Amino acid sequence: MLIEFKNGVCISARAAVAGKKEADGPLGNCFDEVCFDDYFGCENWENAESEMIKRTICHLMHKAEVKAEDIQLFAGGDLCNQITSTSFGINGFPFPFLGLYNACATMAESLLVCGMAVDGGFVKNAAASSSSHFCTAERQYRTPLGYGGKRTPTAQWTVTGCGCFFVEKKGGGAYMQNGYIGSVVDMGIVDATNMGAAMAPAAAKTISDYLKATNTKAEDYDAIYTGDLGQIGSSLLKEILLKENIDLKNHRDCGDIVYSREQNVQAGGSGAGCSAVVLASHILPKVERGEEKNILFVATGALLSHSSALQGESIPSVAHLVKISHWKEREDK
Amino acid sequence: MLIEFKNGVCISARAAVAGKKEADGPLGNCFDEVCFDDYFGCENWENAESEMIKRTICHLMHKAEVKAEDIQLFAGGDLCNQITSTSFGINGFPFPFLGLYNACATMAESLLVCGMAVDGGFVKNAAASSSSHFCTAERQYRTPLGYGGKRTPTAQWTVTGCGCFFVEKKGGGAYMQNGYIGSVVDMGIVDATNMGAAMAPAAAKTISDYLKATNTKAEDYDAIYTGDLGQIGSSLLKEILLKENIDLKNHRDCGDIVYSREQNVQAGGSGAGCSAVVLASHILPKVERGEEKNILFVATGALLSHSSALQGESIPSVAHLVKISHWKEREDK
Repeated sequence: MLIEFKNGVCISARAAVAGKKEADGPLGNCFDEVCFDDYFGCENWENAESEMIKRTICHLMHKAEVKAEDIQLFAGGDLCNQITSTSFGINGFPFPFLGLYNACATMAESLLVCGMAVDGGFVKNAAASSSSHFCTAERQYRTPLGYGGKRTPTAQWTVTGCGCFFVEKKGGGAYMQNGYIGSVVDMGIVDATNMGAAMAPAAAKTISDYLKATNTKAEDYDAIYTGDLGQIGSSLLKEILLKENIDLKNHRDCGDIVYSREQNVQAGGSGAGCSAVVLASHILPKVERGEEKNILFVATGALLSHSSALQGESIPSVAHLVKISHWKEREDK
Repeated sequence: MLIEFKNGVCISARAAVAGKKEADGPLGNCFDEVCFDDYFGCENWENAESEMIKRTICHLMHKAEVKAEDIQLFAGGDLCNQITSTSFGINGFPFPFLGLYNACATMAESLLVCGMAVDGGFVKNAAASSSSHFCTAERQYRTPLGYGGKRTPTAQWTVTGCGCFFVEKKGGGAYMQNGYIGSVVDMGIVDATNMGAAMAPAAAKTISDYLKATNTKAEDYDAIYTGDLGQIGSSLLKEILLKENIDLKNHRDCGDIVYSREQNVQAGGSGAGCSAVVLASHILPKVERGEEKNILFVATGALLSHSSALQGESIPSVAHLVKISHWKEREDK
């Protein structure tokens, strides 16, 4: 479903906090804070992820020059059961809270929800957030870390990171002109260690539907970023779209940007924090500087749980899209 | 945060499907469908909950006289890890999907998100949903059902039920005039078998803040319904609000409506489906008939997980509010 922001919605501030492995990657110098301790000084990984979210919010408030009580809406989520990392992360902050869950598509989902709330005039501003932590995700979805399970070549590495964005009507930098809410796509993939393959068809559908709805072509955009398809999912995405005569030459995947291939991350990065930190520390800076004037940000989510995987279910997936443009593009309208 | 719907948003259709214990309760004759088999004909409880959601959506489409491809947005969630019941429940339907999670406050959350999307002109219509299943919740949060654990008197019984609502600009019946997005409140309650106590302060804050923001009094409403505080949470809510000179004489709790006290449900009903089925089968019919002209629907959520409870964490809670009025009240504006 194409969501048109009548007035455009600015992303006037952005913040990202990440972990050690992310700091060792190509974006290492671009985060607002790096924590070299997986525990972020806490007793357990779940609290660590909450602490990471709290710190990201603090960076965001500092950069947006707002106090917590001035934030009119906070919408976000993470991968932990019942999105407790987010609920505990914002515990103590006074903002109104809408908890979201679309797995690794949550970053685009939260930007869309905040965008509608701001553009519709319901709130003056909103903060959109998404996060993941390697250790909470491994323990929850896969095996205990101490078990030292061998990873398959199709597996992806969950990013330890949180991205937060301040969304309001005015402000320079980057703005959201429209977006697309995707629907659930399920091609019957059951391998929970190959989520790129599960998510690629959802990404393809959302991109294809969006191009049709806006009567535009892939090459009209400086870049089309997917969330965390990884190398296998990215190849599949291109293959699927090529059958529809969409040649995705300007495609990049956040899971391929956040780590270098030498980092032993199998098929690339993933996690609800993957697209979030890459958007905050790599994509938006490019758009703000005008290096890329119009981009599509397509976050993809694999809607499985540990139980559904054990029960042998397939992996339904979803992809949401946000068009982000340099603020000068706004005047051209 | 007060959310004002500029044009008001109609709840033009509603549907509820519930289980056997709910059918034995006071609302037994009011549901669109009752399934006497906990498995809903499926292999496991998780699939059963998805099947229940699917059936509720089918009833809703029938009553709203819309086809699946005409639904422009579906926003909802449930209590299962990664809200898989909802993701799998809508798998195969073509609607755009925003997954939500605010525990048992999800029903009000989804109505608010759908309300903003419709009232802001982003979509023409939307379906809001929330569900829970006794067996999936017991297994996930507490002990295996076969273990036969003794329940404490403060415990609540998770409703097996799903409520879905069709939201659009026009239509008779009931409409949403405004709402309130609550923030996280945590008074340090750590007892996961006493969630009424954990959620009562959040409900109190949202009600109190809403009355201030709208400059209205509790007695201005025909009824103030809370989601699933149960008997203990309800008493606490009244006690807290009385200290602020708010006398909640017209309060009723969905957890107290859905079961009779003879049904051995300890402190009452609970679950993300509790307020959903009571709204669909009891509250909205009253408003549609004009028996109650203006009511407040306040769904309350305990934002814990099984892990957070085992880790000894407190239970942060949230409450969202929707004001629902008889359609004739709209003309008085």
